[in-house]
Amino acid sequence: MSETIWDLAHLAHVELLTPKLDESTWFFTEIMGMTISATTGDSVYLRAYDDYEHHTLKLTAGHEAGMRHFAWRARSPKALDRRVTAIQQTPLAIGWNKGDLGHGPAFQYYSPDGHLTEIYFETEKFSPKPDQQSALKNTASRFPGRGINVRRIDHLNLFAGDVRAFRDFQLGHLGGILTESIVDNLDDMNPRAVWFMVNSKSYDLAVTLDYLGARGRFHHVTYAVNSREEVLIAADICLENGIKIETGPHKHTIQQTFFLYVYEPGGNRIEIANTTARLITDPDYQTIYWTMEERKKGQAWGLPTIPTFHTQGTPMVKSESVKE
Amino acid sequence: MSETIWDLAHLAHVELLTPKLDESTWFFTEIMGMTISATTGDSVYLRAYDDYEHHTLKLTAGHEAGMRHFAWRARSPKALDRRVTAIQQTPLAIGWNKGDLGHGPAFQYYSPDGHLTEIYFETEKFSPKPDQQSALKNTASRFPGRGINVRRIDHLNLFAGDVRAFRDFQLGHLGGILTESIVDNLDDMNPRAVWFMVNSKSYDLAVTLDYLGARGRFHHVTYAVNSREEVLIAADICLENGIKIETGPHKHTIQQTFFLYVYEPGGNRIEIANTTARLITDPDYQTIYWTMEERKKGQAWGLPTIPTFHTQGTPMVKSESVKE
Amino acid sequence: MSETIWDLAHLAHVELLTPKLDESTWFFTEIMGMTISATTGDSVYLRAYDDYEHHTLKLTAGHEAGMRHFAWRARSPKALDRRVTAIQQTPLAIGWNKGDLGHGPAFQYYSPDGHLTEIYFETEKFSPKPDQQSALKNTASRFPGRGINVRRIDHLNLFAGDVRAFRDFQLGHLGGILTESIVDNLDDMNPRAVWFMVNSKSYDLAVTLDYLGARGRFHHVTYAVNSREEVLIAADICLENGIKIETGPHKHTIQQTFFLYVYEPGGNRIEIANTTARLITDPDYQTIYWTMEERKKGQAWGLPTIPTFHTQGTPMVKSESVKE
Amino acid sequence: MSETIWDLAHLAHVELLTPKLDESTWFFTEIMGMTISATTGDSVYLRAYDDYEHHTLKLTAGHEAGMRHFAWRARSPKALDRRVTAIQQTPLAIGWNKGDLGHGPAFQYYSPDGHLTEIYFETEKFSPKPDQQSALKNTASRFPGRGINVRRIDHLNLFAGDVRAFRDFQLGHLGGILTESIVDNLDDMNPRAVWFMVNSKSYDLAVTLDYLGARGRFHHVTYAVNSREEVLIAADICLENGIKIETGPHKHTIQQTFFLYVYEPGGNRIEIANTTARLITDPDYQTIYWTMEERKKGQAWGLPTIPTFHTQGTPMVKSESVKE
Repeated sequence: MSETIWDLAHLAHVELLTPKLDESTWFFTEIMGMTISATTGDSVYLRAYDDYEHHTLKLTAGHEAGMRHFAWRARSPKALDRRVTAIQQTPLAIGWNKGDLGHGPAFQYYSPDGHLTEIYFETEKFSPKPDQQSALKNTASRFPGRGINVRRIDHLNLFAGDVRAFRDFQLGHLGGILTESIVDNLDDMNPRAVWFMVNSKSYDLAVTLDYLGARGRFHHVTYAVNSREEVLIAADICLENGIKIETGPHKHTIQQTFFLYVYEPGGNRIEIANTTARLITDPDYQTIYWTMEERKKGQAWGLPTIPTFHTQGTPMVKSESVKE
Repeated sequence: MSETIWDLAHLAHVELLTPKLDESTWFFTEIMGMTISATTGDSVYLRAYDDYEHHTLKLTAGHEAGMRHFAWRARSPKALDRRVTAIQQTPLAIGWNKGDLGHGPAFQYYSPDGHLTEIYFETEKFSPKPDQQSALKNTASRFPGRGINVRRIDHLNLFAGDVRAFRDFQLGHLGGILTESIVDNLDDMNPRAVWFMVNSKSYDLAVTLDYLGARGRFHHVTYAVNSREEVLIAADICLENGIKIETGPHKHTIQQTFFLYVYEPGGNRIEIANTTARLITDPDYQTIYWTMEERKKGQAWGLPTIPTFHTQGTPMVKSESVKE
Repeated sequence: MSETIWDLAHLAHVELLTPKLDESTWFFTEIMGMTISATTGDSVYLRAYDDYEHHTLKLTAGHEAGMRHFAWRARSPKALDRRVTAIQQTPLAIGWNKGDLGHGPAFQYYSPDGHLTEIYFETEKFSPKPDQQSALKNTASRFPGRGINVRRIDHLNLFAGDVRAFRDFQLGHLGGILTESIVDNLDDMNPRAVWFMVNSKSYDLAVTLDYLGARGRFHHVTYAVNSREEVLIAADICLENGIKIETGPHKHTIQQTFFLYVYEPGGNRIEIANTTARLITDPDYQTIYWTMEERKKGQAWGLPTIPTFHTQGTPMVKSESVKE
Repeated sequence: MSETIWDLAHLAHVELLTPKLDESTWFFTEIMGMTISATTGDSVYLRAYDDYEHHTLKLTAGHEAGMRHFAWRARSPKALDRRVTAIQQTPLAIGWNKGDLGHGPAFQYYSPDGHLTEIYFETEKFSPKPDQQSALKNTASRFPGRGINVRRIDHLNLFAGDVRAFRDFQLGHLGGILTESIVDNLDDMNPRAVWFMVNSKSYDLAVTLDYLGARGRFHHVTYAVNSREEVLIAADICLENGIKIETGPHKHTIQQTFFLYVYEPGGNRIEIANTTARLITDPDYQTIYWTMEERKKGQAWGLPTIPTFHTQGTPMVKSESVKE
């Protein structure tokens, strides 16, 4: 077996499209407790209080909700070179751009499902202004004490029409470990959902089957809070502020994440989560496979998985026949 | 033994004096997460999000920090009559006033140590404006999602020069149960500190010996948060905002309260606390006595009791010789 | 309006019938973390670590699951006399018995729905053996560090065929406050469920409509843990030990209790709960009414109320047509 | 600047010596909630419920407390080769052994301070027996519901007589990132304490100056629990069971760990900790330096650092003059 590729450092940022830029910005600043790093034209750049980069979320005005792109940060300049070389040997490569506010040159490519993706190394570490400095200088900026107080970006979840293709491309060209996967059954091992780990968090990216058969859609992006108690408090804050709660709080069977799913005013699904002390430090972790039969048990403590979880993504699509 | 008197419903409110009214108001609204009910002349009336009365804290501009008065709400009009009758038979009675914003006629008296106190029944239940309403109508107003998010007033702690006199007056004329007490030793049973219960919370009022020998001083007022986790978060919020932390978070041996003591900008000591699921519903609870010898163990998990806890109260007094 | 009667101190204990006495005992000791106070013939007496009485749960072998009786402790001997006198004027009175292990003479009566109930004052305060003593002498016995670590009995929930009759009897003859109630609608105010407060906990007893139209059934008994985090841990412990989880963890809209419902091996529903810092100290609290229309929203964060909540009680009854 | 070496996967295990093997074993199983994997001669092998290897702690009977050795797991066989090659070029190399229960061949070496260390790749993943299996197959074994319920080994802290030598050897030959460091002052940058990161946890190893000037001593090993709430519960469990608490619970300024330090019956210091959602995923994280002047502020919320933290390690040494 070939050695695991450890060239990705972490999920870096996500650019979300919203038809309600002001309301979405209100949600991420006042409800989520994030801070604006910059505003330019139709975009607002945001970060959680302990995100170390310039931004982890870019909100851009659009006709409809969805994701414009997401980005990986590479582990080193050489790691970036290796990944770019690998991607360039595929038809999914796009090419280099000059970067954006907060980071340097990025190499763009499409996921096998058409999600615009980029990878870069050069970044601008967030430098707090005096009134943003934390009393503890090992924190990127001070604890906000506002709304949900999310700490850092945690992971991204994408819909895909072809999960197998995404999985094979990701492991083969980007690296990391497939920590968990849903398969139809243990005979065919046909993948329905996949979770990719690139550091010690048990996943930075998940990809699940889009039951509507669409391509390249966004499922959700997740921000981490410091405790499960704060996920419960987040639920109250959303309830009090008219933010639509889709499901939770509850504990996922897969990856054990304690979750709350809500919709930001622009229509994108957002997760607030805590994973307790769970980490995967085993460098040759063996993939955990879950069958569709096992998934019938629902979430960890028995909550049925909500049907919209398999069909509702952004951009919204005409819900023709659901293809299970 | 005579039957326990259950005529007090709960600690109602505290009026604190502050030489920095604006900064103190900032502290209670932005840091503690409380809301202003009214502002009149030199006073600001505040409440926590689930306080059901008009206010539980009245901040009044003064030359120095301290407490101008505190109030009990009686359990019924008849209970009020009984207590007033009892107090009127002592030299500590002052008389009736017309009430204040938020409550009806109150009968005033001095504690044996000179603390101005009042007792009333008629009150104005807080009626939230539309933008203050909670999504759950069994909550007095909506969860703020701001700062420490204190839920309700919990208890008051006073310094006294003569703890025994305070204790005997309180139990004899106001009622309730002495749930815990520090005594010099089990031979003389000379009280150093006393905790009074009037409902099912294990105390609404505590009185401790003022080692500086002053009379009628204020020690602290406590607001409750929903979990110990939020006391920890409160510590971070205070740290990040330059609020002086005196001691904690830690667990008190006596009453088991999980505490954090800070100073509001005006100089008064404030406690943020959670008592987990502890309640005392035993109607003939026997007082727990702690000796000075036992108190040497410090707080529950071993934190030494901070020396200022015995001397620093408001108003500040010249710290002559400390009398232990 | 007449003054509120405050003669009940608290829910004292519940006697549950179980066809699997050994397994039920295992559940309450090893999973819930309770301790056996005594075993006599077909009964096992148990208490949570901070229950101050001899027992709060009596498990008795029976042909089927259900509740044999439950008990109130009165606030004083005189309060007991007043309540007995009031009950004796109704056809529901049974008469005095000599008491049981752990408490003195009790007066028995039936609820209007036929639940066997008793009320007493004289009790045996739990006196821990040396190896049961807590390091903090204001705790009834030491924290177990075993299973769910429930702290104290919290409340009882009963099914009733006639909720209105139960409510009127309870308020008229036992006292307390009706803190919340579900009614069909605000026009007829026909009660579907009622919550009674007798101290500062927002309820010690709840009674809900039995959709199967049976009389005198048991719904659940609740034990409190110190934090919501421990309710989450309880869910994991139940999951790991094959204890059937019915619903939760989630937050109730009514009373805001953070709940987990499970079934003990004998078939009775048990709740593990935490109510954060919520207390009702308002002595003239006005009942909160919820309509069936409002109840369609489900629990606080949107979890649908599980249908079995309206039909499954013990003893089990043949589920004929469900009468809503 | 050379690229960071990412060849270590994680701290693997620690072998502690104890003069009271039975009592130490009781502590780790009944109080910490760990499980015995194997017992051989004078050694007991233990693991926390989500440790994926055969053991993370080996207790060995000895005349006095202390650490016999500790181990790193390498990220891959090639990574192991690279590290062994690097170490072999130093006088600290010892050589290969055949491994131990639970892992394959290990290469041994001394730290510059004389701590016996080993590094290996081949390991035996823990395979639970049926009654040890978790209901969630992504958990190494089931949640114990016993005592403190530690989840996984977190980090190791060693005393060193020469911190600089340890630091330079570790970064140069083992790799990872120096995430934080205490220095005398910013002029001389003389290191007093160092924290090494090898994955996304902010540290797996810390080394601090031994004020007694001894060489090669053990400071503490840390196990992680899932929440800060469980650190508080751990404090209660230790209090109730006569386990000596040295300091905490409180939040460290450095690394922000929420900590509790206790002594196991054999005399070794053990930490129970939670780090909330903090991770370092930045692959070129810049070391945070703290001066001795800054350290005077104590821990995060003001708790003074306990003096024994600088002198008490195992094995105990005659406390001659303390050398600051």
